[in-house]
Amino acid sequence: MANELGPIDQSLRTRAARVVPGGMWGHMRTGNLPEGYPQFFARGEGAHLWDVDGRRYLDFMCSWGPIVLGHRHPTVEAAVRRQMEQGDCLNGPSERMVELAERLVGLVTHADWALFSKNGTDATTTCVILARGASGRRKVLLAKGAYHGAVPWCTPHPFGVMSEDRAHVLHFDYNDVAGLEAAVDRAGDDLAAIMVSAFRHDYGLDQELPDPAFAARARALADATGAALILDDVRAGFRLSLHGSWNDLGVQPDLSVWSKAIANGYALAAVLGNDRFREAASKLFVTGSFWCGATAMAAALATLNVLEAENGPEHMRRMGQRLRDGIAAQARRYNLGVRQSGPPQMPTILFEDDADGTRGARFVQEALRRGLYLHPKHNMFLSLAHSEADIDAALAVTDEAFSVVARF
Amino acid sequence: MANELGPIDQSLRTRAARVVPGGMWGHMRTGNLPEGYPQFFARGEGAHLWDVDGRRYLDFMCSWGPIVLGHRHPTVEAAVRRQMEQGDCLNGPSERMVELAERLVGLVTHADWALFSKNGTDATTTCVILARGASGRRKVLLAKGAYHGAVPWCTPHPFGVMSEDRAHVLHFDYNDVAGLEAAVDRAGDDLAAIMVSAFRHDYGLDQELPDPAFAARARALADATGAALILDDVRAGFRLSLHGSWNDLGVQPDLSVWSKAIANGYALAAVLGNDRFREAASKLFVTGSFWCGATAMAAALATLNVLEAENGPEHMRRMGQRLRDGIAAQARRYNLGVRQSGPPQMPTILFEDDADGTRGARFVQEALRRGLYLHPKHNMFLSLAHSEADIDAALAVTDEAFSVVARF
Repeated sequence: MANELGPIDQSLRTRAARVVPGGMWGHMRTGNLPEGYPQFFARGEGAHLWDVDGRRYLDFMCSWGPIVLGHRHPTVEAAVRRQMEQGDCLNGPSERMVELAERLVGLVTHADWALFSKNGTDATTTCVILARGASGRRKVLLAKGAYHGAVPWCTPHPFGVMSEDRAHVLHFDYNDVAGLEAAVDRAGDDLAAIMVSAFRHDYGLDQELPDPAFAARARALADATGAALILDDVRAGFRLSLHGSWNDLGVQPDLSVWSKAIANGYALAAVLGNDRFREAASKLFVTGSFWCGATAMAAALATLNVLEAENGPEHMRRMGQRLRDGIAAQARRYNLGVRQSGPPQMPTILFEDDADGTRGARFVQEALRRGLYLHPKHNMFLSLAHSEADIDAALAVTDEAFSVVARF
Repeated sequence: MANELGPIDQSLRTRAARVVPGGMWGHMRTGNLPEGYPQFFARGEGAHLWDVDGRRYLDFMCSWGPIVLGHRHPTVEAAVRRQMEQGDCLNGPSERMVELAERLVGLVTHADWALFSKNGTDATTTCVILARGASGRRKVLLAKGAYHGAVPWCTPHPFGVMSEDRAHVLHFDYNDVAGLEAAVDRAGDDLAAIMVSAFRHDYGLDQELPDPAFAARARALADATGAALILDDVRAGFRLSLHGSWNDLGVQPDLSVWSKAIANGYALAAVLGNDRFREAASKLFVTGSFWCGATAMAAALATLNVLEAENGPEHMRRMGQRLRDGIAAQARRYNLGVRQSGPPQMPTILFEDDADGTRGARFVQEALRRGLYLHPKHNMFLSLAHSEADIDAALAVTDEAFSVVARF
């Protein structure tokens, strides 16, 4: 039984179909989800959000990552309102930009400097330009299937993309040391950069944490060749660690890329770099009309303060582990093969023997109609707003959803 | 005599030099301006802004374009606060997205649909991808020296850019019909798109309005070849017309690109397109974490309402013309050769016999110390907040600035 769409959602879809190609675009198009998911949302508060028909959901997507403290966190909202009373988009940056750059340099181990932009893709692209400009070389190594943005050099959907756009992009398999070494060999003396995600979080697949030997080898190969090691921390940044997602591995990148969780939903991205790339970074020309907007930076300062004061990553890890343990026990009880992967803060739940995705789809649909918003294939996101009671409420729903899946 | 920096600005520059490469990046780096311009700003209100040292300026840059109603316009700020009470960045778009797409399709003559993003560069890049995807062709024609963004296919500063990034970009001279025809010939049956700015607004040069014959020929060539005619209205959009900057010429593009003024300083960009490109647009995968943020869309709806209700473009034209007439009379009186170009809403003021820029620099420095913020080389921007009294106050300052320039 498919979930029924609410009447307001249906009406907005009809209107959108007239004025938006395909009714919606990109990762938020619900055409990528099982039937019955709402397309349009009205509001959020803490760990919950409401669709336009007033249905409330306990939210495990957190707006696909940005909401790291919970929706409308009061400290962040207050900081934004205060900054709005002064100004946001002016003829130059505000003091907030300096404060935020100082804060990030103090917080993220490898960072000596910061640059800001609006999209994760702005920041990954800036790193590639910077690595090429600094080295005079061209080849950039990416893990096969890794998502680094939605522009021609890296998009997973190559409509409108030309071979020239990726002429100097080479691939390796995440966590495959020999494959990475082979790609470095292929690049020869033209290697500008190795870009890696914080962990392997490819859509629809089991997530993989970085093998420490792989991370160390990536660092060593960058050092041996003079290439830049770029850590794409857009998706994982500030959920696993406040100091860089590879910090606990003891591996520091030259450049790192941040966005999503940096300002609890306000539009901001950052490139952080070490001193080796400082002079080259001063030669960059990258810019945007809104990149120095002060409210998003005020939001970021408030977000980082709350994350640090409340040890956000550890809270999210504990809550994610509680969810994972509960799901695992339920799956055993219902005798369902379920694979849980990724760091607990960013769980992925996939069913065994589910090549066509039917079980996963039914599971999340059953959860959705009971007020729990899960994703069947993409990694999900915890936030600081998820309490033990929220996790237990989620588990009460997943228990029922498993019981349905077990019967069909 | 150079203007002295304020102590807070100086102190922030010192701090920024440690944590931001070169102290600042992009178009807001004051290293591109004569000495004495403040780098950091504290607040804005209407036609004025204040630097971090509390110095007030009558503002003719309007944050490089975004501020079209004046800083912190109460209608826009109220709409943003209202939307913030609901939610901004959720698991999908809000109703605001549909409303805004409908509003733009109703307002902009050629538009049948809309897509939203965050940067002008996002939207110009999306148009290039779309034109290539729709046609299966590769060549994109741009006017020499035109600014369409700061990524490798179009940036004016090719640090870190490779020949492949522009392998299929060809150039023509703005307003040169024969040159455009020759470029179309060179592209042959591989022509995907002709992209043109609303007018020629290259940095440091006299601006040129589009020759109607050139605009008509661009449309005819796109029709004859099946290429997309893309109007880059990022800088001029909603200042010259609410219906598209070429609408009064009777020339409609297939795709148009909007950002800057669309939401009075809130981060937003849009691609508008006609039905010919609707199906191809539904195949695009372009996306960003914050692209559906509801507050910027609420800001845009409020901005368009105010612009329409108060006939913003006509007010800005009148105020710009008043400024232009006053400047012209002063220049004659002081016997100074001054060239004013561009539409009155976006004035550019350049001195004759000023190859090294000394006169222009002195002029704007003298204005700055008297509380008037001008740019010596870039086009400037009027807003709806500029009153006749503001223009007259500006002219009182420029009179003094001219008197200084005339003496040295």
